[in-house]
Amino acid sequence: MNKVEPVVVIHGGAWAIPENISDASRNGVKLAARKAYEILKHGGSALDAVEAAVVILEDEPVFDAGKGSCLNAAGLIEMDASIMDGTSLKAGAVAAVANISNPICLARMVMEQTDHCLLVGEGANMFANECNVPSVDPSSLVTEACLEEWQTFEKYKSAVDSLFNNQINSLPLGHDTVGAVAMDANGRIAAATSTGGITGKRVGRVGDSPLIGNVGTYAIDEIGGVSCTGHGESIIKICLAKHIICLMESGMRAQEAVEQSLQLMNSRVKGAGGAICISASGEPAFHFTTERMAWAIAKADVLSWGLDPNESNVEKMV
Amino acid sequence: MNKVEPVVVIHGGAWAIPENISDASRNGVKLAARKAYEILKHGGSALDAVEAAVVILEDEPVFDAGKGSCLNAAGLIEMDASIMDGTSLKAGAVAAVANISNPICLARMVMEQTDHCLLVGEGANMFANECNVPSVDPSSLVTEACLEEWQTFEKYKSAVDSLFNNQINSLPLGHDTVGAVAMDANGRIAAATSTGGITGKRVGRVGDSPLIGNVGTYAIDEIGGVSCTGHGESIIKICLAKHIICLMESGMRAQEAVEQSLQLMNSRVKGAGGAICISASGEPAFHFTTERMAWAIAKADVLSWGLDPNESNVEKMV
Repeated sequence: MNKVEPVVVIHGGAWAIPENISDASRNGVKLAARKAYEILKHGGSALDAVEAAVVILEDEPVFDAGKGSCLNAAGLIEMDASIMDGTSLKAGAVAAVANISNPICLARMVMEQTDHCLLVGEGANMFANECNVPSVDPSSLVTEACLEEWQTFEKYKSAVDSLFNNQINSLPLGHDTVGAVAMDANGRIAAATSTGGITGKRVGRVGDSPLIGNVGTYAIDEIGGVSCTGHGESIIKICLAKHIICLMESGMRAQEAVEQSLQLMNSRVKGAGGAICISASGEPAFHFTTERMAWAIAKADVLSWGLDPNESNVEKMV
Repeated sequence: MNKVEPVVVIHGGAWAIPENISDASRNGVKLAARKAYEILKHGGSALDAVEAAVVILEDEPVFDAGKGSCLNAAGLIEMDASIMDGTSLKAGAVAAVANISNPICLARMVMEQTDHCLLVGEGANMFANECNVPSVDPSSLVTEACLEEWQTFEKYKSAVDSLFNNQINSLPLGHDTVGAVAMDANGRIAAATSTGGITGKRVGRVGDSPLIGNVGTYAIDEIGGVSCTGHGESIIKICLAKHIICLMESGMRAQEAVEQSLQLMNSRVKGAGGAICISASGEPAFHFTTERMAWAIAKADVLSWGLDPNESNVEKMV
């Protein structure tokens, strides 16, 4: 018997998403939300739901995670991902990992099969080998669009300025972090985030996504779950995910906590971004201070989604 | 003209410090506190003070940071460090970095010379080369004691159980994270943390220390600064540093915030550790739930320090 109404919230990145990939972004988050919700409706765990949702987003080349990840300064893909179980507070993350298709699955293996929370670089790949995670040809993760973007942006600085502060329709393709938060029928909350980072980033640069509690990902059943996106370094400075959780712990509602935290990030460190959230009472929330963010929510057999600030579409799920 | 009374707090790690290194641990934190306080008294910045203090602790082989870092499962040293400026909220960190003497200095270079907050593994070492940081022979950082400890602990799990939960006098030598928090004459707060991690850790394992805001290090002038130590994975789960800051932001005094947060970590995830803190009003605080923690405070020309739960020594500084 279900004690709680399951709910899932998805994001596909907060940034100036260009028009030519807006529909693909909408479709990607809808697909991920449907998949996660189906798992929850069949009694699956919040952890299984967020992992499955993020796998779909990693496999979809329109998002900057897994296939379609941005290239770093050396023209290589290094990916970050994290997952957290709000019941045990167990967390797993990988950073600067290469040559695997689904970093979120490796992050879950770190959580469940090691005594650690975060493995990086070669060490993360060594662990992947131990777990028999198939190594893939790096070129299979590189899309034509990411390669063009990398060639366009010679300097990381210009990438940050352009992508987070302006919508550039002339850009070949875009990107950003993906994430999912879910509450299952038993009231358990989980959150997951995955990213390829920012085009032209330094080799070994780690953004916010694998930093449990800083920003990327935080989940604690008693309060709620959060996944963030946007300019990683700004999110780190303000500890966005934990900040949202702290406000909710003090009694603030999820929507207000998300909005207030993103406004603080904007005023204190001039950083733009977005976040999704589910409170312990099952209230879903999202907000973004970038031009656009692809989002989707599934609850009570209804799917809602959007991309532009005031856009909200609704359809019944069967 | 000085507007604020400078203050600095140092820790040399919270764990079951064995008797044979207790005096060296006390002396190390005292030396670091004196050095940082001298800088502050001469009008130096909080950032300069915490960096200089941590350099002293990294150079002292009795602490698990820089020279004297624990060896990982492969018998190698991989170090983590982070620093944060409470005025700008700029932060810099390195993780799983090898072959350099003072990771805290490289963390500061990440903060000041890149657009990123965290560089890991080979990428961190590439950046060190760019900055002309001298590469050192890894064996110069390995102490006989750490080598013996590595040989003793074949499994990471047993290391965690033994070191954080029991005092084992038969251990050849000990270790743990070091850290410093300072407020300068202009009321600016900075925090820094550095560690070699846990003996037998997996290659690429990153603990709490480089995770700004999670635990290792957080500083924001309006509220305070924190540096944490203890079992990194527990600290990550609870987001210890940011948790302390959140409690202080809600009006709690520094000492109560530190104690309450460590108690929460103990009850929620059964993790032991310690933390040091300075509030925006200049109140220093520290607490630990492990058997011992080496700590030192310098304020108003008085140096205080201790190691055991009720130990507090005081001397006038000239």
